[in-house]
Amino acid sequence: MTMINLNADMGESFGRFKVGNDEALMKVIKSASIACGFHAGDPTVMANAVRLAHDNGVSIGAHPGFNDLWGFGRRQISMNPKDLEYMVAYQIGALQGIAHGIGAKVTHVKPHGALNNMAHEDPDYAMAIARAIKSVDRDIIFVANVCSEMVKAGGKEGLRVAQEAYVDRTYEDNGNMTSRRFPDAVIHDAAQAVKQVISFIEEGAVISKSGKRIPTRIDTFCTHGDEATGVGLVSSVRAELEKNGIRVVPLPEMAI
Amino acid sequence: MTMINLNADMGESFGRFKVGNDEALMKVIKSASIACGFHAGDPTVMANAVRLAHDNGVSIGAHPGFNDLWGFGRRQISMNPKDLEYMVAYQIGALQGIAHGIGAKVTHVKPHGALNNMAHEDPDYAMAIARAIKSVDRDIIFVANVCSEMVKAGGKEGLRVAQEAYVDRTYEDNGNMTSRRFPDAVIHDAAQAVKQVISFIEEGAVISKSGKRIPTRIDTFCTHGDEATGVGLVSSVRAELEKNGIRVVPLPEMAI
Amino acid sequence: MTMINLNADMGESFGRFKVGNDEALMKVIKSASIACGFHAGDPTVMANAVRLAHDNGVSIGAHPGFNDLWGFGRRQISMNPKDLEYMVAYQIGALQGIAHGIGAKVTHVKPHGALNNMAHEDPDYAMAIARAIKSVDRDIIFVANVCSEMVKAGGKEGLRVAQEAYVDRTYEDNGNMTSRRFPDAVIHDAAQAVKQVISFIEEGAVISKSGKRIPTRIDTFCTHGDEATGVGLVSSVRAELEKNGIRVVPLPEMAI
Amino acid sequence: MTMINLNADMGESFGRFKVGNDEALMKVIKSASIACGFHAGDPTVMANAVRLAHDNGVSIGAHPGFNDLWGFGRRQISMNPKDLEYMVAYQIGALQGIAHGIGAKVTHVKPHGALNNMAHEDPDYAMAIARAIKSVDRDIIFVANVCSEMVKAGGKEGLRVAQEAYVDRTYEDNGNMTSRRFPDAVIHDAAQAVKQVISFIEEGAVISKSGKRIPTRIDTFCTHGDEATGVGLVSSVRAELEKNGIRVVPLPEMAI
Repeated sequence: MTMINLNADMGESFGRFKVGNDEALMKVIKSASIACGFHAGDPTVMANAVRLAHDNGVSIGAHPGFNDLWGFGRRQISMNPKDLEYMVAYQIGALQGIAHGIGAKVTHVKPHGALNNMAHEDPDYAMAIARAIKSVDRDIIFVANVCSEMVKAGGKEGLRVAQEAYVDRTYEDNGNMTSRRFPDAVIHDAAQAVKQVISFIEEGAVISKSGKRIPTRIDTFCTHGDEATGVGLVSSVRAELEKNGIRVVPLPEMAI
Repeated sequence: MTMINLNADMGESFGRFKVGNDEALMKVIKSASIACGFHAGDPTVMANAVRLAHDNGVSIGAHPGFNDLWGFGRRQISMNPKDLEYMVAYQIGALQGIAHGIGAKVTHVKPHGALNNMAHEDPDYAMAIARAIKSVDRDIIFVANVCSEMVKAGGKEGLRVAQEAYVDRTYEDNGNMTSRRFPDAVIHDAAQAVKQVISFIEEGAVISKSGKRIPTRIDTFCTHGDEATGVGLVSSVRAELEKNGIRVVPLPEMAI
Repeated sequence: MTMINLNADMGESFGRFKVGNDEALMKVIKSASIACGFHAGDPTVMANAVRLAHDNGVSIGAHPGFNDLWGFGRRQISMNPKDLEYMVAYQIGALQGIAHGIGAKVTHVKPHGALNNMAHEDPDYAMAIARAIKSVDRDIIFVANVCSEMVKAGGKEGLRVAQEAYVDRTYEDNGNMTSRRFPDAVIHDAAQAVKQVISFIEEGAVISKSGKRIPTRIDTFCTHGDEATGVGLVSSVRAELEKNGIRVVPLPEMAI
Repeated sequence: MTMINLNADMGESFGRFKVGNDEALMKVIKSASIACGFHAGDPTVMANAVRLAHDNGVSIGAHPGFNDLWGFGRRQISMNPKDLEYMVAYQIGALQGIAHGIGAKVTHVKPHGALNNMAHEDPDYAMAIARAIKSVDRDIIFVANVCSEMVKAGGKEGLRVAQEAYVDRTYEDNGNMTSRRFPDAVIHDAAQAVKQVISFIEEGAVISKSGKRIPTRIDTFCTHGDEATGVGLVSSVRAELEKNGIRVVPLPEMAI
């Protein structure tokens, strides 16, 4: 039976600043990437997100970002790879510290925002993240965009890599997502998103806007809950997957 | 043979802002309490401090503080105990994340600055810290001022508690340190500091300025490296301890 | 003709973290206290709030808070009065810097959250704020709770003081607001809020829950837009004031 | 009589984190660029730096940087120009707020670190800074590297621009400083620095390492006090300038 994972970013509030729709989304997805206090999140928000995930049978991962709360981790920042490695290890450890008391385990890491974008292309950034994961717990799964330097870096460090595509993003012929600067970067229509997900899984490939087929293993699809239509779109995708006999499971249950 | 621990705060730099004299002090003490990024410290600074400790046979602990970099954790801040608990768990976990890659283990926790002062007297703060330690790793030693609410809180939670006195602070009749508002709060004279340490150990008691003897187990003495005379004073204390046949050991070797 | 001011806190978003309902509230009130980047707010958020106020004929003031973004300025923090004075002057100046380019002028200062609460009772905090205002611009109006140390401090420094009561808070016999720890601290019913405002103005007094009359000048009423019923309640108050022939004006038009 | 300005960065401490040697340097230079709390500095540090400058007849300027305390403003950060403009206006205003109470006036602005580097080359960044200055006070002097986009941006906005060279940095044939990645980027020898300064002034040009002469007006030389030899080197330069009949004056006295 085909299995797939659906993941989403969670725990992106900070103190009194509330972000996202964790409660609703947590019932639809199977793995939560939890902000670790650098671009968003704080210890209490993290604890609440971990507990919510745990109660819903959702596996948890660290979602490390740049130390840029104001920019929500979406500004590209130049930093040396050694500092970056420690910055990621710190954030993974912090989430482990919170999770342990709740009886949960950190089973994946997915970089956030601009850090993810930069590590997609920059081998130094990608390797720094891979080394950080390996240094904290070599069993942790590295969630990496298909066709990215992160996939390679995870492989070099001997990590388990979950290859990720997006439910609601379009793709270029090189396997990269279309930049958000372009109007057709994001899929807002649930039916189109569902169609993309099913076809990627069935074809074992990412299919670009132009129709080009880039064969690749896909282990997980990223979803978003932060737009008005977010949870509805994700629910449609999940229902359609199950209707097609594809089981949606937490990341650790994927054969990675 | 009598054994005692000497500890000091370490890793209190932040980015380009350099604080302290870790390299010199690390050769004299046996346990380092490492700032965890909230009142001071950052992932790189933490990694460097852990490595330095590891190379010198110094055991490491987390030194959690308030999220107050500007105030260096020395401003009293009111917060609810649940937030405090998670804030401490986060910091312990972050240090564990850093330490794991270096092959080191976090074996104690000692609260910093105003958090330490408040938890000394406030059972809610003391219990929040104890619960945080327990939730992350119940084998971690809670370093707590003699006669403090922290000693009681650690006991209630079934933690190992290392009772701590200060090498260079004077004491009141109730077992509390003399407030820094008073000129005789700090001992600057090495000979006097040495005398205090030896007498506390030999008498099994803290002895106040007025000469009152408050019987208590003492497991560790806190030292400071941040004043000009710091390392010299600590070196004198250590040499004198060894001359008196008292072995200076890392915290995990103490029978706590 | 009787005149009164209605003020509200504004510009409390931070980066991607959105807070409040500035657009709606700005049409109902006449003076906006704008967060200055320490407990909330950022340069862009401040510029947007200033522009919105300016376009709506709303006078602007600085709303300085503790340097505690996580706590949203609601945690009490101990600090020395000199640091506090500079911290407030900095925030006023920052808002002036933003406002100047928009053609607006900072005409009042109102401390935020825990800083307001502490300065209500603590003469050192109250005087530090008064000195800060005076040092930046002695024409700026100090918005201070009735019966507070801030009223006295403003007087001592020769500042114009706008005495403030709350639309939706109940009062004790000593003129202080009922603590939020008690269930009857906040008035949720618009009719009751309207009745309180009109009676305070007509009687020239704050009237406590027990019915005690504490005679005092009242120049401005604070409103809140951050609860679901917020804007509706404030609109009711404003409509009722005008129906009673009381003009609602910006702070600089009050005879203070 | 030839006049020149010597400037230096000042007020780069933060809370308990001490940086620099302001007291010594303030006696040698004539204009201080004061950090404004984003990459370094805090309200108290700023007040102390302003007072020190004021007492020494040193003119003051704002030294705005990225909101990156950890990186000390030395990490390149991508941000949109409108946010950048407000971020700079905020920092200038904050310093004005502090300075007003001390009887000092902010008479120049010089961007810090990575912001300076990026604005050197990027017209969007350069224009954002120029607009910020103009919006706060159009009489403020924009201190800009020779041959930079900032010089052009200041010109376009009708600002007074002080063109700046470095006492201790070498230059490339395009008028840019040699990157710090190269060993010959920094001049450590006082005699060589003195020679560079005198020749630049006498020739009315920056002279590159290869000997190329790039004619340009130079109004101010930047010095550094943060290295061991810093103050000594700057003192040598100043003494030599005066020996050569060149008067060292505050920026507002330069004919810009």
